[in-house]
Amino acid sequence: MPVHLQIEASRGSARAGKLITPHGEVETPVFMPVGTLASVKGVSQDVLEELGVEILLANTYHLYLRPGVETVRRMGGLHRFMAWDRAILTDSGGFQVFSLNDLRKVSEEGVAFRSHLDGSSHFLSPEKATEVQIGLGADIIMAFDECTEYPADRGRVRASMELTARWAERCKNYFEAYKYEVPWEGSGQWPVVSGQDPVPSTQSLFGIVQGGMDAELRRESAARTIDIGFPGYAIGGLSVGEPRELTRDVVLSTLEHLPSDKPRYLMGVGTPEEIAQYAQSGVDMMDCVLPTRAARHGLLFTSQGKVSIKQARYAQDDGALDPACDCRVCQRYSRAYLRHLYAANELLAQVLNTVHNLHFYLTTMRTVRAWIRAGDGTGAEAT
Amino acid sequence: MPVHLQIEASRGSARAGKLITPHGEVETPVFMPVGTLASVKGVSQDVLEELGVEILLANTYHLYLRPGVETVRRMGGLHRFMAWDRAILTDSGGFQVFSLNDLRKVSEEGVAFRSHLDGSSHFLSPEKATEVQIGLGADIIMAFDECTEYPADRGRVRASMELTARWAERCKNYFEAYKYEVPWEGSGQWPVVSGQDPVPSTQSLFGIVQGGMDAELRRESAARTIDIGFPGYAIGGLSVGEPRELTRDVVLSTLEHLPSDKPRYLMGVGTPEEIAQYAQSGVDMMDCVLPTRAARHGLLFTSQGKVSIKQARYAQDDGALDPACDCRVCQRYSRAYLRHLYAANELLAQVLNTVHNLHFYLTTMRTVRAWIRAGDGTGAEAT
Repeated sequence: MPVHLQIEASRGSARAGKLITPHGEVETPVFMPVGTLASVKGVSQDVLEELGVEILLANTYHLYLRPGVETVRRMGGLHRFMAWDRAILTDSGGFQVFSLNDLRKVSEEGVAFRSHLDGSSHFLSPEKATEVQIGLGADIIMAFDECTEYPADRGRVRASMELTARWAERCKNYFEAYKYEVPWEGSGQWPVVSGQDPVPSTQSLFGIVQGGMDAELRRESAARTIDIGFPGYAIGGLSVGEPRELTRDVVLSTLEHLPSDKPRYLMGVGTPEEIAQYAQSGVDMMDCVLPTRAARHGLLFTSQGKVSIKQARYAQDDGALDPACDCRVCQRYSRAYLRHLYAANELLAQVLNTVHNLHFYLTTMRTVRAWIRAGDGTGAEAT
Repeated sequence: MPVHLQIEASRGSARAGKLITPHGEVETPVFMPVGTLASVKGVSQDVLEELGVEILLANTYHLYLRPGVETVRRMGGLHRFMAWDRAILTDSGGFQVFSLNDLRKVSEEGVAFRSHLDGSSHFLSPEKATEVQIGLGADIIMAFDECTEYPADRGRVRASMELTARWAERCKNYFEAYKYEVPWEGSGQWPVVSGQDPVPSTQSLFGIVQGGMDAELRRESAARTIDIGFPGYAIGGLSVGEPRELTRDVVLSTLEHLPSDKPRYLMGVGTPEEIAQYAQSGVDMMDCVLPTRAARHGLLFTSQGKVSIKQARYAQDDGALDPACDCRVCQRYSRAYLRHLYAANELLAQVLNTVHNLHFYLTTMRTVRAWIRAGDGTGAEAT
């Protein structure tokens, strides 16, 4: 039984429910914080739990280079390695490899690339990316795709989309053959149903829809990916430099082609306003480095808009960063103190800023879930 | 009523008790973590509370430059500024200015120096250092002293010691004239005694004994400092490059000249073994950057000795950092994970390593306090 979505309420195109995974249930729509190297930078796992994080994203490309998949596999997979019992999703490495630009070479077989760390040569294919992700042992793993560059002409976008479709099938074939090699021991069993034996679980492989900014190619990519068959579908290839309105158009038109009974995951998006809008449009899962990366640069999201805490105007401001926020940072510290920590380049600045921004994103999603459940007038969609 | 020590048990030269401050009681002997810029690097105040930290040290020199004393004073002093209700001690800046070497010039009046940040010119005198510390508003503040370099000939050490003594008197005179300018509002009152009005409290100024490595000059410095009269006495001018055995000899001989009913503070020392030994020798207070700085460089103190977590031997070690340790790091994470975080230069490495090392130091002192109380056969010394 793969990861699946229990839809409990809907409002327009939006739906709220639970994503059932081998490592717990996840309230959806959900924002997944990014823990690139098996750590959300500066925040310990117990604080993530307190924040209410139920699923994390980790990056296959980075973990493949450091500490290496063999280390994580021998340690029992990512959950045991990073001491995190809740759900984890790994990306396939496709997007990171795409970002390497001059350091990569794409062929039908896969992608040859050089490490951004030491220049060493590596090769990721659909099979290899799946093998690595099985070794890492996240609950949800992603098909290895080609993230089409922007802008690109239609012929190029079609060829890239078709390559992604062929790769998706190879990923699925590899996954079905090797999915029982997941390094879970004892953990990762489906919730025990009274009177039944616990079922040893495997990971779930999600497919990714590409097709650039072309609505027709997106439709075709969705159809081909659904035809292969996955327990969840992602919209990839966005946030690659295109205008925000175009992102939105592509997301909305692609969503129409995804099955309503499967989780829909929009990759790498966006601002607090955007994640709220996409959740209201029917997206179930999102991830983005924005809250954590911006935090480390002193950019904070609040109910009153963005705050650049480095500004001198906050040097003697003894108010809370966000008076409407009940996070542990806003409950205890002043803007003056946060500004001082940032200006003095203190480690604690990055820690506290990240905690606040994550809380803001998670609260944004809690609000959307409540909005969906409050407006549930049409009955839950089929589960 | 100044800060004072309630001695509750003694064993040989050692004593255990409570340091009573305007911001709470501190179990002694105590190790004070260093929060240079009003933050223990990477560790939020709620975690410090959980660790059992009852008093922190902050550095006047650094806070004077960033964010500046006026900012801290207007924010209500360090306690409010950094959201820390427990006790704080500030050093005088003397040691930091001493460390600037080529950037400083000492005269009878004080020390002219250039900022290590931007080269700007500044001047600290006994009066100015005391004024700054009143503005910062720690519970315990330190006399502005000259930290004598090592090695130095006897004439130089005597001259320096005598300068420190003259400066100590100037510090006390300034403090007595201006001590009511402490920026506390509402906080910082002595514990209310039933039936009595709460007493608005002031800070306490401690004197510092200098005299280099010369036992006779140390004796003379102690006598002159005691003659001026302070509610507590520190041993300064150590850990300046001398051999560890010499440090120990100087500390032990100086302790004999300090009044037994006043807190004795040994500045800037040392390893876990050393702080345990000095506490057993009658020192009540110590501070050192070692546990926090070493943590950020991957050097961890454990019950089995030092661990350099960067070593490849820990890459697949799924055991706890210190199996005998009950800190939140050792209870949750493996050596393999800590090694990965450090090797990948993850922020969380510095956070977790610091939490563990602080826990180790604080536990070391808890053990010494229990040892003193367990051996209390001679009756408590006079309080």
